Order: sequence, then C-alpha cells, then structure tokens
Amino acid sequence: MALIVKKFGGTSVGSIERIEAVADLVIRSKQQGHQVVVVLSAMSGETNRLVSLAKQIDDRPSARELDVLLTTGEQVSIALLAMAIIKRGHSAVSLLADQIAIRTDNMFGKARIEHIDVERLKQELEHNRITIIAGFQGRDSEGNLTTLGRGGTDTSAVEIAAAISADECQIYTDVDGVYTTDPRVEPRAQRMSQVTFEEMLELASLGAKVLQIRAVEAAGRHNMPLRVLSTFNPDSGTLISYEEPEVTCKTVSGIAYQKDESLLIIRQVPEIPSSLAKILTLLAEYDIEIDMISQINHQAGKIDYALTVHSSEYPQAFDVLTTNRDDLQAASIEGNAEVVKISAVGVGMKSHSGTAGVFFQALAAENIQALLVSTSEIKISVLVEERYLELAVRALHGAFGLENVE
Amino acid sequence: MALIVKKFGGTSVGSIERIEAVADLVIRSKQQGHQVVVVLSAMSGETNRLVSLAKQIDDRPSARELDVLLTTGEQVSIALLAMAIIKRGHSAVSLLADQIAIRTDNMFGKARIEHIDVERLKQELEHNRITIIAGFQGRDSEGNLTTLGRGGTDTSAVEIAAAISADECQIYTDVDGVYTTDPRVEPRAQRMSQVTFEEMLELASLGAKVLQIRAVEAAGRHNMPLRVLSTFNPDSGTLISYEEPEVTCKTVSGIAYQKDESLLIIRQVPEIPSSLAKILTLLAEYDIEIDMISQINHQAGKIDYALTVHSSEYPQAFDVLTTNRDDLQAASIEGNAEVVKISAVGVGMKSHSGTAGVFFQALAAENIQALLVSTSEIKISVLVEERYLELAVRALHGAFGLENVE
Repeated sequence: MALIVKKFGGTSVGSIERIEAVADLVIRSKQQGHQVVVVLSAMSGETNRLVSLAKQIDDRPSARELDVLLTTGEQVSIALLAMAIIKRGHSAVSLLADQIAIRTDNMFGKARIEHIDVERLKQELEHNRITIIAGFQGRDSEGNLTTLGRGGTDTSAVEIAAAISADECQIYTDVDGVYTTDPRVEPRAQRMSQVTFEEMLELASLGAKVLQIRAVEAAGRHNMPLRVLSTFNPDSGTLISYEEPEVTCKTVSGIAYQKDESLLIIRQVPEIPSSLAKILTLLAEYDIEIDMISQINHQAGKIDYALTVHSSEYPQAFDVLTTNRDDLQAASIEGNAEVVKISAVGVGMKSHSGTAGVFFQALAAENIQALLVSTSEIKISVLVEERYLELAVRALHGAFGLENVE
Repeated sequence: MALIVKKFGGTSVGSIERIEAVADLVIRSKQQGHQVVVVLSAMSGETNRLVSLAKQIDDRPSARELDVLLTTGEQVSIALLAMAIIKRGHSAVSLLADQIAIRTDNMFGKARIEHIDVERLKQELEHNRITIIAGFQGRDSEGNLTTLGRGGTDTSAVEIAAAISADECQIYTDVDGVYTTDPRVEPRAQRMSQVTFEEMLELASLGAKVLQIRAVEAAGRHNMPLRVLSTFNPDSGTLISYEEPEVTCKTVSGIAYQKDESLLIIRQVPEIPSSLAKILTLLAEYDIEIDMISQINHQAGKIDYALTVHSSEYPQAFDVLTTNRDDLQAASIEGNAEVVKISAVGVGMKSHSGTAGVFFQALAAENIQALLVSTSEIKISVLVEERYLELAVRALHGAFGLENVE
C-alpha cells in the first residue's frame, strides 16, 4: 500500500465525461489498496472565461480580487469529482486551501506556499476517504485568497505530497510522459522512462512544457518522486527522481527548444565593467527579464553585448535600449525576433567530455550558424535562426542517438 | 451618515454592464457620506448552470459537495463588483463567509446562520472600504461550506445588518417595492411606502415574492428596518419595519394570492379526536406539508375534513389518502387542483371589526363561492376556484379602497 498524490490538469477534468473517467481512475487506484489524495485544476477553459470577465471590467484588475475570482475554478472541479466518486459508492471529500491551511505569502497571482497543515488531511485519510484538494490556491496570513500563478496546481500537488510524505506524486496530463524531444518536430522522439530532477529542470525551462518548473524545483527540494502520465492512456509514464537511470550510456537525455526568445545586440560600448551593469539595470527598471547573455570583444576598448529576452518583451526592450543608446555610449542597437533557442540536456555530460564537439559538429554538418551559445554543467544551448528549428532539433536528436532510447 | 447594508440579487448583477451599474449606485451612496456594506447573489443563471453540472453527474448529488459547488457563484460576483469599484478609484474589498466567520449549522443546502464575527467587517469599514460580502453561504463548526438555500442572500444581508447594527438593510430587486396586489392582475395596484413586518410576513408567504420569508422573519426578530427598492430605478421603495404607517385609515394593506395550492376533502370520518391526528400523521410520513385546514360536522358522529397542500405534492397526497381510505374510515376522498388562495392582509384589522363583512360581501357581489376559509389576527384567506382569481383580487382590492393608497 502506498500513499499517492494524483494531480489532474484542466484537460483531464474538461468535461463531465472526463471528470467521470478521472473518478474511475482514482477509484481503481484505491481498490489496488492505495491511499489517494487528488489535486485538481479548473476545468479547461474556465480560467480563461473568468479572466475574460475580469478584463471586461478592468484591463488590469485588482490582483487580490482576481485571485478571489480565479479560485472558484478549482472549487467547481473538486466538488464535481467528489460527487462523481460518491455517486460510485466510495467515500470522498473536497477541501479548499483554507480547510487544510495552505498558507502562502501575499503575492497575489504568483504566491508561494509557505506551510501546509496536514492534520485535517491525515484525519480524512484515516477515515479512508478519497481526499480532493483544490490546486493553484492558498491563503495568506490574513486569510486573503491567493493563487500560485498559471500551472500552479503542479506545485500544489508536490507541496501537498511532501507535507504528507507521500510515496509518489503523479502528474496526469494529456501527454504520456517526457520525450527526448518534441515528437511534432522529430517523429522518432522516444519517451524517457526515467529522468533526473536536474535534467527535467533544464528541459522544462527550455520549453518541454510538460511540467511547471516551480513544481520540479519543489519536488527536487523535497526529494519527492514525480511521475508524469497520461490521463487518457495511463501506463508507467516518466519517473522524475534523483536516481540516474541504471543503464545510462547516454550523455544527452533530450533536445529542447524555446521559440519565444528574441535577440538584442548592443554594439561597441566602452569596455568597462559598468557598461553591462548599466544595460541590465536599465532593462530591470522595465521588468524585462534576460535569459542568455554573451559578449564579444572585437576591437580595442570596445565590446559587443548580445542577450535574449522573452519575445513578448522584445519590442519594449528594443525601444528602451534605442532611446538610451547615447547614455549607453553604444554605436548601434540591433535586434532579431526570428530566433529560437535549442538545447541538449543530460546529466551524462558531467562525466563525458566531447559532448560539445558532437553538438557543434552536428550543427555544422547542416550548415547551421549559432548566434549565441550558453552552457551549464548539464546543458548546451544555442540560439539559431528560427527557420533552422526542425533541422537543428533532428540533427542533434540523431547525433546523440536518442531515437534508440530503450 | 448612516451604516447601510445593500443586497443585490442575481438579476441586478446578471451581466458585466449591470455589475458596473451596481458599482456606480454603491459609490453614489458612499459619496453621500454613508458607510456601505454590499451583499451579493450569484449572477442570474449561474446557480442553475452549476446545479445542472451536478445533476449530470448525480441526480441527487452529495449535499456537502453541492454546497462547495454552488458557493462559487457568489464568489464570482463579489470579485467582479470589487474590481469595478476599484477601477473607479474607490477602495473595496470582497469577503467570503469564512473571512467574516459566518457560522451556520451543518444542514447543507438549507443551513441557518448561528453567529457572525464582525471584527474584520468593522476593521474594513474603519479603513473606509466598501465591503462586499458573498451572500447565501456560511461555514459550519468544522469549516465545511454551507448554503442557506435559494433566496438565502436576503437572509445573509439581514443577519449581517443586524450583526453590525446597521441603520437599514436595503434589498435591491427588479421591482420597485411591495404593492397592494399583483399589478399584472389589478393594474390599479399601488406601491406601499411602508408596511409592517407582520403584514410583510403574511404577504410574502402568500405569494408576494419580493422577499424571502426567512429574511423578513430575521429582520423582524432583530428589529432591522428593511427597504425593498429597484436596482434599475432606485427611489424610496417600500420600507418594512415595526412602525405602522402614521396616517393609517386602511384596515387592509394588500391583497395576495397563491396559485399552487390544491384542495383535498376527506368525507365522513368518525367524529373522534384521533381522526384528524391519523390524517396528519399519515401525510407527515410522506413529508407532505399542509397549509389551510378546516372541518365541517354535517351529520351525527361524522365529520368532513378539508385541507390544502402544495400543488406539487397533491398527486402523492391524493394517492396516500385514497390508499388508506379504509384505515381512516372515510366515505370518500375528493380533490381539486384548480383552486387558488386569496388573502387580505393588514394590521388595521386588529382594531377594525367588520373587515370580514366587507371581504365576503365583495365576493358575494361577484357570486364567488369560498371553498375554504382561514383567518388570523391580520389576515383573512379564502380558497376559491382558480377561474375567479382575477375577479376576486380586483373585487377585494376595490372593496378595501387600495387603489387610493397615498
């Protein structure tokens, strides 16, 4: 008998039929002898519907009141699932954030969980009830409703699993696991049976949108095994844990890509430490986040900086830099929104030299020029022109032998 | 400066436009120097939408979970109204039942308010914020969500008004007050500027569906002046209080009618005390409620009982009595669903004799036969054939001079 937390996303509870399918799935797990805690998102489309109501009133609605509005979405799902399980003759109870004291900070719209009081939850499990908890939400120290931001239900599930020392936290979604790359780009992509937290963090932040990155971080911090599975075709999925796959001859586990990056180049600023500081401070004033960053010293006393920002912030970033070109003492500001970041990720890199060689040879063989490079212990990323996306992903997937993952 | 609780029903917050109109109305009241607490229902149609989701899962959904589901309706309204007020530059905060500790018993779907902790509410008012509270909901002693039943938002408003010693509780609805009778039946019906709690209780229970009867009871118990006004055309409306109108020369304030009553007659049962007890116990076993009741002793040792039940329970009541006719020692069971109850209500009756005379003369002049009669201190009710409804209402409205209310 295991204690399992199961999280279902919006698509998995998107209609009455799907909620009933989830009820059946949860009951099967219970009948196999497990204790089951369920964490739910809002029905798909519901959060958007609510946001659109708010936007009709105010383009920038009060953050506190937006959270009051949005938390109703999960409340609807948990009540309906509880009804469906009870209808099938099993004992179930739905619980809101305040009923198990999910305490967060007071950052409305992007709150972080600080504490969960598991007493009530443990009582319900002792009474042998299937316990269904509203994800995505919490209460601050003054009792105000908060939300954890989009995708926050993954985080709720992990934090709840950690608080009750669950054996596993299972994230049900509309894909059946984590793949070596996007199967829409490379049909030979393989599902990984296992991946480490570190790898998953790099894969998630790079665009493998299976799991919310904060949830993976939280799972890693609590050492809580995470499993990604499909609601519609449940099998073993992909397990994410600290353990490295037993037979690991791969240096690279997967190839990720991120489309919504844009490139900015600030040409020929004075080669003094304050130059970069000035650029970053300026962008920070406008809340523009920077991802990749690199520099080329190409003539005496002058330096070029290249950096990437999220595409949604690219027009503003370009404006800000252009307006302040004189102050930055830059010769020119250049930009390119038609770029994509491609990354190879794998814990195997740590112990294998030559990974970078294989990486750049594969790109070179296709005549793909890297515009920017960034590396970490378990990741190599390059920025390339967007038209090379599919070609580069397939070349790298092949070069690292990922179509043959067991 | 007064402390006012304003309650808006589903139609008043039925769309974004209407929510914005309510925001303007509330702000105007604030600008006149009042402290304002707002209590809201769910947007019209929302509660029905949620109930229909639940019914798709289970015809008789878990009562606890149905309350978890339904309370989301008011949560949506309060968040949207708070946003609209904040957008207009005023300070507002929405609060759920648990945030001002609206404590109820644990009768899911029809809970009663036991206690309200007004500390938080008073704090918000001291900070000069317009405070917007979700009606219809509470929490039981274990923190479970409860609802007060359909129309319960009126009750929430009255109980909150009483808890904070408000000067007045204003119920905004889609009619502009309480009328001397239904204007659809008698176009000469007049709006009353004032009516007493006792009169309103009789009028409400008899079908003047402006206010929920439990809310009127609660207002009377707390001596909280209630005012009914129109959201769409706000003027002074009708004030309901203990004070009798100053210049009251009327014995009767209004004529009410109730269509969904049905008549049952149990003929010639033994004239012993246990006969009626037997009939009532039998109907109670099937949860059938009785409204009017009367008896005619028309031959030695035998008695006829006539009683009315709600039309929705009439077929079952008729079946139950017919099946048990032998046991009741009744000669026959007769029934008539084509009847209507018409009542004249007025505190003036207490001090005026002759009211009944005027009442029955008016009916006699139209040749309308009463099938059943029932009276109280401030009310005379008759059951008549349904086809006489309009004629009887107009005859009584005229006989008591109600078209001339100031």
